[in-house]
Amino acid sequence: MTIVEMECDGAVARLTMNAPARLNALSDEMLAALQSRLDEIAHRPDIRVVILAGAGKAFCAGHDLKQMTALRTTRDNGAAGFKDLFDRCARLMARIQSLPQPVIAQVHGIATAAGCQLVATCDMAVAADDTRFGVNGVNIGLFCSTPMVALSRNIPRKQAFEMLTTGAFVDATRARELGLINRVVAPDQLRVETTALARQIADKLGTAVRIGKQAFYAQLALPVAQAHVYTGDVMVENMLNPDTAEGIAAFLEKRAPEWDQ
Amino acid sequence: MTIVEMECDGAVARLTMNAPARLNALSDEMLAALQSRLDEIAHRPDIRVVILAGAGKAFCAGHDLKQMTALRTTRDNGAAGFKDLFDRCARLMARIQSLPQPVIAQVHGIATAAGCQLVATCDMAVAADDTRFGVNGVNIGLFCSTPMVALSRNIPRKQAFEMLTTGAFVDATRARELGLINRVVAPDQLRVETTALARQIADKLGTAVRIGKQAFYAQLALPVAQAHVYTGDVMVENMLNPDTAEGIAAFLEKRAPEWDQ
Amino acid sequence: MTIVEMECDGAVARLTMNAPARLNALSDEMLAALQSRLDEIAHRPDIRVVILAGAGKAFCAGHDLKQMTALRTTRDNGAAGFKDLFDRCARLMARIQSLPQPVIAQVHGIATAAGCQLVATCDMAVAADDTRFGVNGVNIGLFCSTPMVALSRNIPRKQAFEMLTTGAFVDATRARELGLINRVVAPDQLRVETTALARQIADKLGTAVRIGKQAFYAQLALPVAQAHVYTGDVMVENMLNPDTAEGIAAFLEKRAPEWDQ
Repeated sequence: MTIVEMECDGAVARLTMNAPARLNALSDEMLAALQSRLDEIAHRPDIRVVILAGAGKAFCAGHDLKQMTALRTTRDNGAAGFKDLFDRCARLMARIQSLPQPVIAQVHGIATAAGCQLVATCDMAVAADDTRFGVNGVNIGLFCSTPMVALSRNIPRKQAFEMLTTGAFVDATRARELGLINRVVAPDQLRVETTALARQIADKLGTAVRIGKQAFYAQLALPVAQAHVYTGDVMVENMLNPDTAEGIAAFLEKRAPEWDQ
Repeated sequence: MTIVEMECDGAVARLTMNAPARLNALSDEMLAALQSRLDEIAHRPDIRVVILAGAGKAFCAGHDLKQMTALRTTRDNGAAGFKDLFDRCARLMARIQSLPQPVIAQVHGIATAAGCQLVATCDMAVAADDTRFGVNGVNIGLFCSTPMVALSRNIPRKQAFEMLTTGAFVDATRARELGLINRVVAPDQLRVETTALARQIADKLGTAVRIGKQAFYAQLALPVAQAHVYTGDVMVENMLNPDTAEGIAAFLEKRAPEWDQ
Repeated sequence: MTIVEMECDGAVARLTMNAPARLNALSDEMLAALQSRLDEIAHRPDIRVVILAGAGKAFCAGHDLKQMTALRTTRDNGAAGFKDLFDRCARLMARIQSLPQPVIAQVHGIATAAGCQLVATCDMAVAADDTRFGVNGVNIGLFCSTPMVALSRNIPRKQAFEMLTTGAFVDATRARELGLINRVVAPDQLRVETTALARQIADKLGTAVRIGKQAFYAQLALPVAQAHVYTGDVMVENMLNPDTAEGIAAFLEKRAPEWDQ
């Protein structure tokens, strides 16, 4: 049994964080295994969508505080170790967004601190209706500064500020209202509904989805005028794809496309 | 009969895309006519608000796929033609936001792909309650990369990502929740309600609205500190307008203003 | 009696704008008193949260139009005076966000123009359910260009544009939906609920909240990759705080932390 299990069903890869006794904390081992799995998936054109889930009663409860505390024994009181940890965590978050394939968080139980950061960082998220979300590091004196990067780019700022400074949980319904997640489903439908969403996207032309995901984050970072120039070039590239030509021809001829993908 | 009809009622100009058989697709002719009408309106101080509507059963169904396909016969497989098309489309979108007057989309039926981009690009939008919105190019292998520029600046990012990768429609109620449109009305009230909103704004001091629209997009692109400096200067300019002096004096004297506009 | 009253209750400071006859307009005296109080609070480590409230029937109705009109008598028709006024106002808004302590607006009655700007600029806001919010300067010919800097960074852009160009009020329920405020409460519970929120935050480790507030606005202004690097460094600094070490140790040992703060 490995700390991150990977199953493939057609073009959908499912990664399951599997350290339930530690609420799937982002330990050194968990970070390394997630990074490794995603680096592998980045080079697998047969995989078109990724689901990220957690085994046991929680999606993910954030960093591994025991491991972090153990770093304090060095002469610099752990400074170098902490920096290295947050670097690795940032690399993982960047990997999720730079991955060619969309990543959907399948969330249940609790998603707290860096666990909530994972949800915010994934391209989409489906949650069981009894999930609780929080950036509650402030309760132990460690403000969720790294989780707030993704959180504050997902939800309105006053609501982000409240979650960060009060450490209070929000439920799944509120999380959807805020924009943190896409869908709320019954717990016993979570896996089915998340898989259905993944398959819906996996059935699209894979190259188009990859072009689009990359362009999505790239254009968000640009001023509007530059974003128009950039995405215009992306559209030209997309139009020149033979599968896209076939997709458009099929649409005009009112038939199903025959894609090589 | 022209492909974009223009009617003026007082200070409100109404542009109606009029190619119902093609669901008001953004053909070369439609793009040129919209650009031309808006370029003309930009120099008409008597027009204070613009409504953009569509004739027939749809607001706008996006680009004209037949025309686009016809471009493929060149030696570069249409690359230069596609680039030119997306340049013209981007110029139209920029023209809407740089227009001195507010532009309100009056939306019904469907608003898909570049049609949804039009809605997202307009300053405001009123929609009939049976309107469906989608950026569904992904369904034919052409990711809506250019529409996502405006869409992702109107609605939360996870919801934008979902619309773009699933190609699924959202209805008018959901579109309003997301921030894509301002108001949802009964279909038989659409024209009346949109016109009422336009008139409400047309009744304001025109120079103040023009100053404000320009400043709105300009300050959004700036860091907060610079935005304060810039808008401070805008306020000074606005204060020095004799009509504004009269507006403030009238308010203090509890009477209606007498504006020269 | 002073124009801005300050009361401290434990670590919570309450500033009350006290010019009810002028609906707490941001007169020269009000701006100066608020700036002075906040500059003082910035150097008071014993204060951990600030509440900003208004006496009388309104939270704040914006700038003092009589004072502004009086500036017009100079040879430049008031230009230099207006510029100075907006500079002072911008400095106050910047002071709120650069203040080490979170600032919660306690809002009732009306919050209009620069009064709505105050609400949008505070880190959080709690409002009585009968509060009305507006950026209605356009009604007198003075577009709310400076208020829109904070407003358009709090709520979706089409909704901001509508408020700014129509001058229409939104009620407290709608303001919460839009993201302009955090909570809506019964008028007779406003002070109690705002104080409870302030105390909830004041009970956290003060240094962690200060680190977090500063990092919140700093990282919002950065590209994502830089925001990760920056907040990683912030987390390292936070981890090296002995009180944070105690907070984490206490959590792991399932006991209450003993903080020096």
